[in-house]
Amino acid sequence: MALKIQTRLFVDAALVAGEVLELSADQTHYLKSVMRLDPADRIALFNGRDGEFAARIERFARHAATVTIETQTRPQDAPCDLWLLFAPIKRARIDFLVEKATELGASALYPVMTRHTMVERVNLDRLLANAIEAAEQSERLSVPTIHAPQDLARLLASWDSSRQLMLCDESGTAPPAAAALASRARGPWAVLVGPEGGFAEDELDALRKLPFVCPVSLGPRVLRADTAAIAGLAVLQALLGDGSAARP
Amino acid sequence: MALKIQTRLFVDAALVAGEVLELSADQTHYLKSVMRLDPADRIALFNGRDGEFAARIERFARHAATVTIETQTRPQDAPCDLWLLFAPIKRARIDFLVEKATELGASALYPVMTRHTMVERVNLDRLLANAIEAAEQSERLSVPTIHAPQDLARLLASWDSSRQLMLCDESGTAPPAAAALASRARGPWAVLVGPEGGFAEDELDALRKLPFVCPVSLGPRVLRADTAAIAGLAVLQALLGDGSAARP
Repeated sequence: MALKIQTRLFVDAALVAGEVLELSADQTHYLKSVMRLDPADRIALFNGRDGEFAARIERFARHAATVTIETQTRPQDAPCDLWLLFAPIKRARIDFLVEKATELGASALYPVMTRHTMVERVNLDRLLANAIEAAEQSERLSVPTIHAPQDLARLLASWDSSRQLMLCDESGTAPPAAAALASRARGPWAVLVGPEGGFAEDELDALRKLPFVCPVSLGPRVLRADTAAIAGLAVLQALLGDGSAARP
Repeated sequence: MALKIQTRLFVDAALVAGEVLELSADQTHYLKSVMRLDPADRIALFNGRDGEFAARIERFARHAATVTIETQTRPQDAPCDLWLLFAPIKRARIDFLVEKATELGASALYPVMTRHTMVERVNLDRLLANAIEAAEQSERLSVPTIHAPQDLARLLASWDSSRQLMLCDESGTAPPAAAALASRARGPWAVLVGPEGGFAEDELDALRKLPFVCPVSLGPRVLRADTAAIAGLAVLQALLGDGSAARP
């Protein structure tokens, strides 16, 4: 659906007009061999802090491209403050989940361990690479923070209760998402989806008792964990997030 | 997120209590070698017409399992009437899109050709297999109809205007989805997402002039076609579809 085809890269370095930057070997390969760009072609750079800058390719060395940073094309925006808490799932599905959560504006991803979580090892480097690629392609100016896996109960024990938590609750007793969210404030939010095996009954009971938890139903069908995460983020963004506001 | 782990299979045959049914070689392999079920174990069957029935495995032959249909466990529900029109995309993404659209309750999938559609061949058998698997796993009682690819303009020329069409419009001028849908009737709906290259400007102009088209924005980021389809279906179901109603 991209209306403007442009090569955008995320970098760690500060972005200052007139400065020269050396890109990584992977980025160089991407520009040269995948996008087939040439010296003098322009790309866009962002780093999550300084907005987006145009940059001109000066030369390609074997494993490094040198670019000159030109003018700022977009100022840094205030990113969404929207977390996703999810029980890790298997490889292709977790890659997909990270890509989609990034496109939908999640600012932080928390893999959380629950009673029925089957997958315990998470390759954080791969998840971050997926998030960076999705940020580059979705015109985001920031990359979500990927946290190390942790126990859900421990994360909730130190929760700042000013952040509301939308619990994707498939038990059949939660109100529909639109009704449940109608009376809620915008503020910072998080979305929580359980593992493929579902939450244990006592986990659900404990979650529902937390004052910041808002249980919602996403409809009558049983959703896979990745589907629930994507649908939950999409619905929350549409009703209370940056998908609910007209664009400037 | 499945709360009840159960083996469910879609079959073509009529479901009548007491009748005996022979399952396909693929289904037999799945029951025997993947789910490791034994004779006398029970599964659930549905066919999109007769509701859901419990069935008892009688015996496994080499390439066929024989089951006896027992009692009806759920009556046939009135399925959602929700179409998805999408420009075909590459293999892994189209598989994923079909799976997610099925979980989210789409009743018919229409691959449509637009000016910038890059992928012209669609393996309908594979898409149907994905839809069946997703229906089995999401507790649906029906499988979406998969239509052959056709020209978008031709499909719209014979459109029944009582079906509203939510156009996922990334041009930046469409109102946010929640605002755009707030004044709309429930009725039958369809969701339309464009190809990865976007709609051509004159295609968008023509779409916006159609009386049944409701252009919506899904937020400020550029979404991949598969993300837009999933987010669009999730938001429409939450606001006007079966995700908006409390469960019986």
